Amino acid sequence: MHDSNSRASDRFDPQDFDRVLSSMCTRTHPEAAAMARRFMDDSPALPEVYETVVELERRAVDLLGEVVGLDEPHGYVTTGGTEANIQAMRTARALGDTEAPNAVGSEALHFGFVKAADMLDVQLRLAPTDEDNRVDLTEVRRLADEDTVLVVGVAGTTEYGIVEPIPELGEIAASVDAQFHVDAAYGGFFLPATDHDWQFGHAPVDTMTIDPHKAGQAAIPAGGFLARDVEMLDALAVDTPYLERTSEATLTTTRSGAGPASTYAALEALWPDGYEAAYERERANAEWLADAFRERGYDVVDPELTIVAADVPNDVFERLSEKGWRILRTGEDELRVVCMPHVTREMLESFVADLDAVREETTGGAAA
Amino acid sequence: MHDSNSRASDRFDPQDFDRVLSSMCTRTHPEAAAMARRFMDDSPALPEVYETVVELERRAVDLLGEVVGLDEPHGYVTTGGTEANIQAMRTARALGDTEAPNAVGSEALHFGFVKAADMLDVQLRLAPTDEDNRVDLTEVRRLADEDTVLVVGVAGTTEYGIVEPIPELGEIAASVDAQFHVDAAYGGFFLPATDHDWQFGHAPVDTMTIDPHKAGQAAIPAGGFLARDVEMLDALAVDTPYLERTSEATLTTTRSGAGPASTYAALEALWPDGYEAAYERERANAEWLADAFRERGYDVVDPELTIVAADVPNDVFERLSEKGWRILRTGEDELRVVCMPHVTREMLESFVADLDAVREETTGGAAA
Repeated sequence: MHDSNSRASDRFDPQDFDRVLSSMCTRTHPEAAAMARRFMDDSPALPEVYETVVELERRAVDLLGEVVGLDEPHGYVTTGGTEANIQAMRTARALGDTEAPNAVGSEALHFGFVKAADMLDVQLRLAPTDEDNRVDLTEVRRLADEDTVLVVGVAGTTEYGIVEPIPELGEIAASVDAQFHVDAAYGGFFLPATDHDWQFGHAPVDTMTIDPHKAGQAAIPAGGFLARDVEMLDALAVDTPYLERTSEATLTTTRSGAGPASTYAALEALWPDGYEAAYERERANAEWLADAFRERGYDVVDPELTIVAADVPNDVFERLSEKGWRILRTGEDELRVVCMPHVTREMLESFVADLDAVREETTGGAAA
Repeated sequence: MHDSNSRASDRFDPQDFDRVLSSMCTRTHPEAAAMARRFMDDSPALPEVYETVVELERRAVDLLGEVVGLDEPHGYVTTGGTEANIQAMRTARALGDTEAPNAVGSEALHFGFVKAADMLDVQLRLAPTDEDNRVDLTEVRRLADEDTVLVVGVAGTTEYGIVEPIPELGEIAASVDAQFHVDAAYGGFFLPATDHDWQFGHAPVDTMTIDPHKAGQAAIPAGGFLARDVEMLDALAVDTPYLERTSEATLTTTRSGAGPASTYAALEALWPDGYEAAYERERANAEWLADAFRERGYDVVDPELTIVAADVPNDVFERLSEKGWRILRTGEDELRVVCMPHVTREMLESFVADLDAVREETTGGAAA
C-alpha cells in the first residue's frame, strides 16, 4: 500500500525508453517537450480564448506543408494518425457521389482504417500483399470501382515500414475519380531524406496523414491531417451554434495545446537537417540489426525504412521480454524492432548481447 | 522576425488564465500537471510497452466509477467529451437492432453529437427547449420510437449548465428499449456535491461522459467514457491483427499518457472533498456574479451550476474583450461566464469593475 500522504508523481515512474524497441513513439525533443508543458492547458478549440496556441498551430501546419510538398497546406494537428485517417475517409465520403461508398487499399493498412470504415459505414476493400509484403496493384485496380470514394496508399507500413507505390496508387484513384489519401503516419518524417515518391509533389495526393508525435519528435498527442484543397477540410465542419465560431472541423473538439505547440517547436528545431540526420542514424541502426539477426541464422525482412523483423522463436522472444526489452511481434510472429530516435546503437548492442545470452540458454534459439 | 537561434519556449507564452472567463478548461491541479509531464510520452495504446500508464488508467477508471456511482466501471480515459459522446452513439448503434437508427435528446446537446450523428449516419432528433432553456419532455417522448437506439440526457448543459431531468429521460429510453447516455462532461465533477439525480445510481444510465480535464482539474486531453456493462465497451473494439492485443476500443489509438496519469492524480488529490469545496466556491462565485449583473439592470439566466449568462449589449461586450477578458456569447447573444477553479472572486471583482468603467464610457451599456 502506498503512503496516502505521498504524491503520485513520487510513486509512479514513466517507462524508461532505454529498452523500448517496438514503439513508434519516442522521446520528445527537449524544446518540443518544453512547449508541450507550457501549452498543455490551452485548447485550440477556443481560438478566441487561447490565441497563441492557434498561431502556433498555423505555423506548425505551414511547416508540415513544407515536409509534404504543399505550398498552401490546409489542415490541423490531430490527436494522432487514426484521427487523421478517419478524417480522410469522412471527407471522401462527404464529397463522394454514391450511396454505397467503398475505400480501397492494401492489407497493410493500419487497423485505424477498420475503425474508420466501421464508424462511417464505408466498405473497406483490402488487396492482398505478396510474400515480400508488397501490395498487389492488379488486385487494387480490380477492387476499385465507381463507388470507390477513397484509395489509400501507405508511405511506410506499420508492420514492416514498406513504402507502397504512391504514384501508381494515385493513378488508380484518378481512374475511378476517387480521393487519394497517403498514410505517412510513420514514414513522413523519414521519407524527405529518401528517394521515394510519396508526397503531394510526387503524385496526385489529396489528403495525407503524417504524425509529428512519431519520428517528428513532438509530444503525444500530435498527428497531422493535411489536405490539398480547403473544401476537403470544410467537408468536416459542423456548425457550432452556441460558440463564437461558425464551424469546427476536428474530430475531438477540445484538444491539448501540447500537440500544436510541440509540433511547431520540433519542426523549428529539426526540419529539415535534424530529421535527415536522425533518419540516416536510424536507418544505419536498422541495417546493423538486420545484419546481426542474419548472422545468427534468422530470416529477416529487409528494412525499407527503420523497421526490422526477424523470425526469432517464441521462447527466445519471451526470455528477451523477461529481461525488460519492450518488444512486439508481427502478425507473422516475427520479432519487430522499430528504430526510432531513442533507439541508439548501444541499446541495440546490449539487446543483441542479451539475444546471444538467451540463445545459449534455450534450445529453440539456435536457428542456424 | 524572431531570432532564429532563440527557443520557441522563450518566445511564446501560454494564455494567462487570469482573464479567462468563458472556458470550461482550467488550470491543471499541480499534482495532475506533474503526472502529465511525467507520462506525456507513454501511450496506453501499447500496454505491453507502457505498463505503468495502463495501471494508472485502471486506477483512474475505478475512481471515476466512484464519482458516477458505478461499482464495476468499464471505460477508459478519452481525448475529451466529444470522443466519449461519439463512443456512446457508436455502441448504441452497434447494439441496436435497426437499419435506420436515430438518437433523441434536447437542443441543448453539445455540437459533438452532431459530429457523431453525421459520422455514424444516425438521425439526430432534438427536442426544443423552453424559454427557461429546459427540455420539453413531451416532445422527447414524441420523438423516441422503435428505431431509437440512444436517448441522451445532459447533466450540465454547455451553454447554461442546466441539469436535464435524468430519471425521466431514462424512463423514456427504457420505454423504447434504447440505450441511455448521460453527458456529464461539464457537470460531472460538480454534481456529487449537489442534490441532483444524475448518475448510474440515480437512474437506469447505460453510458456516461465525464471530463476530468474540465472541473476534474486533470490535464488536457482527459475525457472519460464509462459504461455499465462490458459489452458496451466490447462493441467498440476492432481486431488489431499485427499487434499483441486482440482488440482496441478507443477512437484514436495512440493516446497521451498525460490523460490517464493526470486523471488519477487529480482524483487522488481531490475526490471527494476537494471537488466539493471547489464546487461550493465556484457556485458562490456564480451567484455573486449573477447578482452583480442583476444589480446593473441586466437580464440574467440563473446559474444552475456555475455558468452565468447575462444580456450584456454587444458594444459593452466588445470593450470588455478589448480589455483582455476572454469571454464568449451564447446563441442568444448573452455574455456567458463559466466559473471554473481558476476563476477567483478577485478576478470577478476586477471584471465587474471593468464592466462599470465600460458602462460609463458607452451609451448602450446603461441597461437599467
